[in-house]
Order: sequence, then C-alpha cells, then structure tokens
Amino acid sequence: MKRTAYRLTDIVARFGGRVLGDADTTIDQVATLDSAQAGHLTFLASGKYRAQLAATRAGAIIVGEADAAATQLPRIVCDNPYAYFARVSAWLNPAPQALPGIHASAVIGEGARIDPTAHIGPHVVVGAGAHIGAHCVIMAGCSIGAGTILGEDALLYPRVVVYHDCVLGNRLIAHSGAVIGADGFGIAMDEGRWLKIPQIGRVVIGDDVEIGANTTIDRGALDDTVIEDGVKLDNQIQVAHNVRIGAHTAIAGCVGIAGSTTIGCHCRIGGSAGILGHLQIADHVEISSFTLIGKSIREPGSYTGIYPFSSSVEWRKNAAHLRHLDELADKVKTLQQEIEILRRKD
Amino acid sequence: MKRTAYRLTDIVARFGGRVLGDADTTIDQVATLDSAQAGHLTFLASGKYRAQLAATRAGAIIVGEADAAATQLPRIVCDNPYAYFARVSAWLNPAPQALPGIHASAVIGEGARIDPTAHIGPHVVVGAGAHIGAHCVIMAGCSIGAGTILGEDALLYPRVVVYHDCVLGNRLIAHSGAVIGADGFGIAMDEGRWLKIPQIGRVVIGDDVEIGANTTIDRGALDDTVIEDGVKLDNQIQVAHNVRIGAHTAIAGCVGIAGSTTIGCHCRIGGSAGILGHLQIADHVEISSFTLIGKSIREPGSYTGIYPFSSSVEWRKNAAHLRHLDELADKVKTLQQEIEILRRKD
Amino acid sequence: MKRTAYRLTDIVARFGGRVLGDADTTIDQVATLDSAQAGHLTFLASGKYRAQLAATRAGAIIVGEADAAATQLPRIVCDNPYAYFARVSAWLNPAPQALPGIHASAVIGEGARIDPTAHIGPHVVVGAGAHIGAHCVIMAGCSIGAGTILGEDALLYPRVVVYHDCVLGNRLIAHSGAVIGADGFGIAMDEGRWLKIPQIGRVVIGDDVEIGANTTIDRGALDDTVIEDGVKLDNQIQVAHNVRIGAHTAIAGCVGIAGSTTIGCHCRIGGSAGILGHLQIADHVEISSFTLIGKSIREPGSYTGIYPFSSSVEWRKNAAHLRHLDELADKVKTLQQEIEILRRKD
Repeated sequence: MKRTAYRLTDIVARFGGRVLGDADTTIDQVATLDSAQAGHLTFLASGKYRAQLAATRAGAIIVGEADAAATQLPRIVCDNPYAYFARVSAWLNPAPQALPGIHASAVIGEGARIDPTAHIGPHVVVGAGAHIGAHCVIMAGCSIGAGTILGEDALLYPRVVVYHDCVLGNRLIAHSGAVIGADGFGIAMDEGRWLKIPQIGRVVIGDDVEIGANTTIDRGALDDTVIEDGVKLDNQIQVAHNVRIGAHTAIAGCVGIAGSTTIGCHCRIGGSAGILGHLQIADHVEISSFTLIGKSIREPGSYTGIYPFSSSVEWRKNAAHLRHLDELADKVKTLQQEIEILRRKD
Repeated sequence: MKRTAYRLTDIVARFGGRVLGDADTTIDQVATLDSAQAGHLTFLASGKYRAQLAATRAGAIIVGEADAAATQLPRIVCDNPYAYFARVSAWLNPAPQALPGIHASAVIGEGARIDPTAHIGPHVVVGAGAHIGAHCVIMAGCSIGAGTILGEDALLYPRVVVYHDCVLGNRLIAHSGAVIGADGFGIAMDEGRWLKIPQIGRVVIGDDVEIGANTTIDRGALDDTVIEDGVKLDNQIQVAHNVRIGAHTAIAGCVGIAGSTTIGCHCRIGGSAGILGHLQIADHVEISSFTLIGKSIREPGSYTGIYPFSSSVEWRKNAAHLRHLDELADKVKTLQQEIEILRRKD
Repeated sequence: MKRTAYRLTDIVARFGGRVLGDADTTIDQVATLDSAQAGHLTFLASGKYRAQLAATRAGAIIVGEADAAATQLPRIVCDNPYAYFARVSAWLNPAPQALPGIHASAVIGEGARIDPTAHIGPHVVVGAGAHIGAHCVIMAGCSIGAGTILGEDALLYPRVVVYHDCVLGNRLIAHSGAVIGADGFGIAMDEGRWLKIPQIGRVVIGDDVEIGANTTIDRGALDDTVIEDGVKLDNQIQVAHNVRIGAHTAIAGCVGIAGSTTIGCHCRIGGSAGILGHLQIADHVEISSFTLIGKSIREPGSYTGIYPFSSSVEWRKNAAHLRHLDELADKVKTLQQEIEILRRKD
C-alpha cells in the first residue's frame, strides 16, 4: 500500500506549531528516534532522550520550545510534542474502515435496534431490546446483552462480552476479552454456606472510555458501577461492583479495585496496584505500581508502598527482621532510657 | 415491566422472622439504604450503617434483633439480615428464563448428550461425547470440550471455555471469559530448552460453585485439579494445576494459586493475594489482600503480609532502610553490649 | 479406549537410558508416585520424594543415576528423569488429531491463505490476507486478524484472539482467552484529557512458544513487541507494548511486564511478579514470585522483594514501624554517638 505523504507545512497548517528547517520535507509515517528513516516523523517528548537525537535518521522531528535548537533536522516546534505526535499519528493511521451492515452469521434478538451505519461482524450476538448506535463497529464474536445501550462510534474488538442492561457511552473502545457487567462478588454467609446476592445494578460508562484486553468491570449489586468520561483502563484490570472511577483517570494493567470504592478524577494508578473496598480516593492522586491502598486518600499527591527488591540472599537476611521490628524498636527505646540513666550519673 | 409487589406478611410467611410496624406494607424490589424509595425493602447488615437509618426513604427494612428498635420503619426482624436479604432478593430477581433447545448455529459433536430441558445458545460448540445436564443454560459462544460432563442447572455466561474431559457439578455458575481445564504450566528443562509435560489430569468441580469472569482453572498434570462444593471464586483468579480448594472457601479477585497447593474448607482469601505451590492451608484460614503466602499454614486464623503505603516521599526515606535492616539490627546488638559494659563499669 | 502398552526395553530403545530389573515390564501411562498403579510408569525427579518410593504401586519408575539403587522396582536409569518423563508422556499422550479442512461456519476473509492440511474449527474468523501454515489447528471461535501470519503446527485452543498484522512462529500453542496484538496502553495528556496514541507496531513471536489462558500480549506502539523462541508464558500474564522477552525464558502466572522492558534469555520469573517499564533484565535472571522489579538488573542471579506474612496481629505490630524506619535508624545513630561520648569519658 502506497502511503500518502505530507509536507511539514501541511502538518502545521492542520495541527499548529511552527516549522524550523525545510518546511517542504515530506513524511508519511511516525516512528521512534531509533528506528525512524527518511520519510518518518519522530518526536522528542523528554530531555532524557536528547542523546539519541544525533543518531536519528528521521526525516523530521517534533520538539518542544526548549529543544528547538537541539537539532538541525527539519522540525516542528510546539508546546506539547507528545500530544502533537499523538494527533499526527492518529491522522496518518486512521482506524480501519468497516462496512455498515450485519453479517449473515450474527444473531440479533427481538426488538434490538441497530443503527444502519453500524457494522456487526460474524458470530456476534445482540440480545433482545439492545440498542447499537451510529457508526459502531462490533467485531467478530462479541456478545451484547439484552437491553444494553451502546452509544455512537463504539469500537468493540473480537470477543468482547457486555452483559444485559448496561449503558455504554460514545466512542468507547473495548479490547478483546473484556467483560463488562458480569455479576459482582456478592455472597452472604448463612450457616456455613454462601448465599448468592443477586447483582441487579448495571455498569454505566461515559464517553471516550477505553477498556483493555481481558479487563473485567462488574455490574453493581444494587446501585450501578460507574466509569466516567475519558477514563482509560489498560489490560487485565478488575473493577468490582459499585466502584466509581472519576473522569480522565488512567489505570495501568493488572490493577484490582475492590467493591464500592470511589476513585477521583485525573488519578493515575500504576500497574498491579490494588485498592481495597469502600474507600474514597481524592482527585489527582497518583498511586505507584504494586502498591496496596488500604485506607482512603483525602489529599492529592503521590503514594507508594513497595517492598524494594534485592538479591535473594540479601533479601533473606533483611526480611527476617521484619517479623521482629516491634522488638527492635523496643530495644532501641530501652537503650535510650539506659543511656539517659548513664548520662545523668555521668 | 410491572413488578410483582409483596406484603411484609407474605415475606415472613415464606422466609421466617417477624414483622414490626405495618405488616401490609408492600415492596417489589430490594435497594440500599441510600437509594431505596417507597416500595423498596432495604437492610441493615452491620451497626456501622446505623447512622444512615434516619435518612433512608425505604418502604421497609430487614434488621437484626439488636436493631429491632433502632428505626420506626416497617421492618422484618431476623437473625441474619444479610442472608435474609439475599434470599428475598433472589426471590424477587430470579435468573432470566432461557427456553429449552439448541440454537441452529450451535455445533454439537458426535455422541454428545444434551438434556432436552437444556438451553444451548448461538454459536455454542459442544464436543464429542460431552454431557449437558437438565436445565443447563449455555449462553452464546461457549465451548464445551469433548467428553466433559456438566451437571444440572448450570449457568454458563457467553464465551466460557471448558476443555475436554472435565467434570462440573450441579448449579455451577461460570461467568464470561472463564477458562476451565487449560493445560497447567508444566515444563521440564532439557539442555537449555523447555520440554512440555502433557497435562493429562482433569478439572473436577463440585456442586454450587461460582466462577468469576476471566478466571482460569488449569487441568491437572497427572492427577486432577479439584474445586469442592460451595466454593466461590471472583474474577481474574488463576488456579494452577493440581490445586485443591476446600468446600465453601471464598476467594476474591486477582488471586493466584500456584500448583499442587491444597487450601482448606471455609477459608477466605483477599484480593490479589498469592499462594506459592506445594503448600497446605488449614481450614478456616483468612488471608489478607495483597499477601503472599510462602509456607504452609497449619492453624486457623488471620494472616497478613502487606507493605503499608505512605506518601511517595516518606516511603522513599523509610524503604531505603529495608536493604540495611540486618545492619541496623547488628548495630542495636552492639549498642546493647557496649551499654552493658558501661553499666558494669559504672 | 484400550491404550497401547510398551515394554521398558522398547522405551529405552527409543529414548535412551538403561533398564534395571525386569525389562519386559509393560506400561501404558505415566502417573505420580502416589497415584500410580500397575501398568503405570512414574518418576523420581528429586531426592525429596524418595520417602514416597517405598509406598508406590507403580509398575516401573524413571530415576537418575544417584537413585539407581534406591528402589527394587523395574526402572529406567537416565541423566534427567523429569525430561525423560516429559518425553515418554508426550509419546504416550499425543495431542488429539484434528481433521484438515475448514468448518462450514468459519468465515474466511478475502485473500486469506489457509494450508490445506490446517484445521479451522467452527465459528473461527480469519481476516483478509491472513496466512495459516501447514498442520495448524485453530479451534472453535478463534479470531485471526487481517494480514496475520501463523507458522506451521500451531495449536490455538477455543476463543484465542490474534489482532491484525502479527507474525507468529511454528509450533505455537495458545490457550483459550489469550489475546495477542491488542493495542498497547499509549496515551498522551493534553489539557486534562487523554489522547490515544495509535499502536502501529506488531507482535512478533518466535518458534516453540506457549501462551497460557487469558494471557495478553500487546502490539507495539511504533516498533514491535517481540517474544523470542522457546518462551513459555503461563496464564493471565500481561505483556505490554514493545516488551522483548528473550529466548527460553519462562514466566509463571499473573506476571505484569510494563512497556519497553527487555528481558534476557533463560530467565525464570515467579508468579504475580511485576517489572516496571523501560528496564533491562540480563540473561539467566531469576525473579521470585510477588516481587516488583523497579530498576534494571545487569547481573545474572536470583532477586527477591517479598513482604513476609505473619499472623495479622503480629503483622499489625511490626508493620507500624515501617512508616518510622528512618526515625528508628536516626535514633540508633544518635545512640552510637552518645555511647561513643560516654566511652571516651570513661
């Protein structure tokens, strides 16, 4: 496939910024500093990659004002090179087109309404009374539960499952294996046996949300589980029932969030972190990877709880003391008292 | 849909307990203290929510004996309000009916036996010689391996996969994306390369088990992997080959259990915990979230190993000492000896 | 099904080693020391199971030279009993045959090339221009993206998803729910909103790789994500964009590897471990379960960072000091100085 090439001058006309160097330089794809070739546009998002500038074979580069003079390459100078690069890349790499229509092998339930501009792939099942909005692309083998409402321009990759009666916003992207609306883990102990609590809430998802592969978002027990606008979830995340995730929060892979916890807006949560249930996390909180949050966080800021690794031999020597830290602290207190006595006598 | 309404007096006739206040109050749904409206039955499962009692707009409430006088609302008084609520909710919210029969798009292998009361949804595949018991509901896109036996009244949500030759009990609920019977991680090192060990055991699951979305239970290497009656597994749990999980144990999301470990009955395991392989965990053990169990637990009780979080700045200051705890303990020992010498001289 | 029986003498003729005891003993299956019966071949892979030798009812056993005299059972003596057992078991338990051909319900895109010896199961979707190599077995409901190339002898269990334009080597085994080639988690912050970075790299997988159930391997952002020959991945692992995993590395379940990290060859990574992004891990590194690797590892060796568990009561007492370790270390330093002063005066 021949790619369309654009001049830097075309790009700044569309996305802003200014060109330094030859504005007629043409590019047809984006690439990293390391692998870029002639015809490729690369970017310098952070000063720590400045050392790689000299060696890049890119045709042109996007840089911030601070780096405007750091290279002689034809360059676009702008405020936020990484966001600029994201926009150019999205323009050069549009999502593949899918033709409107319903594949012959799809099974559509009674009363389901599917916008004629939507694409329904092979072996998709749409439950009774579900709505699929304009320009949605529902790829092979997805299952949309009865009564579920899907906004416009959603893109569901193969084998996404949405249970019944959920409400999903516009421009949702959900990757393969994501499961939205399964029962929350609600059980009551009764004389040695667990009784299941019916999970009658829904999952309600705002606009511009992305959900990673094999991520699970459980439906509410009684009230709803809510994912607000602009939330970005990586792969293999578990969102339990009645969680609320605030707008524009981003969560990396393998995070687990227990039931009824509310997370604020604009938070960033690192991979494999965990958050216990029934907590409140304020807006603008950053949580490090591999950190368990065991109580509410009321103030914005950065929070961590990671056991530092070392060689296994050193770890064994040091970690043994963790089971006796209280004794160690007591010994130090006793020493302080004894020294105080000795000093007074002195 | 018009919901059926019941009087409190009807409910206690069915489920026991006694009514205080107007026994003719009718309710048609359950709800939380916060969101309940007229016509809703709520519950007070724990004293810590007592403060919300005054504000609830519920039509009626389920309370324990200790809280019988804590509200003037029409109320059902019983021994275990949460279990009582579970039963009433299950009665008001029955699982949706699925008509018996096999969808035209399903593919049924040679010699498979499917009870005529079972529902086999679109695009389901049932392998050769598999048995599907009475009243099972196998939803869209499930795959049941050759020779697998499924008891009565099982409910498999869309896209559950069960491999060949497994045995699953009555009333199993398995959520979307669950994979039962995939190969365990059995490999042998041979001159720098891994050889695969065929996994010829099965997965054997008792009655009344629930398996969460995207949870995986591997088949045994030689003997079987066993999940006993009444076990409840949340989402995204990994159960390795030859694990045995005792009856009525409940495990929260994202837990990983390594191979050949045996977990007792009536255990409770918190989210994202881990249990190493070849261990024995006694009955009635509670394991906290985010805790790694690295050796066998012989006594019932509660076990924890969580690194406490703090602000990232404080964490950095404190965590640095973990790599020198052994030195710190040595210093304290030296100080004790030196002080002892000084005191003797004194 | 009647199983074929082999004499020990047949087995050593095929796989090497030597027989002690009755070489005409026949076996038709492998089993553990505990559960083996007459007709079963068991093995002693490690001295720590020697106590079980006396009680085994196995027909014969595979042992190392050191254990040649440890039993009177008919036995095969060889260098690496576990690898030997793996080979014999693979011979006795061949993968089930799947007939060549494309199921009528499969949907094959334009220009896709499927080798006539390949098996394409029910409800499989193969995208436009994809290639499926000789003797591949693609089981029910798999989805192979447009332009993806699959080598020879691959075995994909039901409901595996491979996105577009990936390259997968020979003899790949991928278990149900695995998702290969979903978008990496690439987002750029722009005035309070996240912009998606198109993920235009691929996933490239070498030969003899196994991928566990519900494991996810994201496609590269710009360059490729690469899994080298002989890598073995257990279930529920998350491999982020632009990760490279070196040949013959084995990774246990629930591990998360963040973006752009390179892992060497012949590494072993324990379950639920995590590795942050943009790191370099040397060859022959072992990482313990539940350990977060937060900086590059340049030297082969064994690395650990686990918080040891204890009873919850003891944990609470000890863990409280972790938030004050820096103060504790300061106190010890002060005590050292004060004692030094006292000693000088003394």
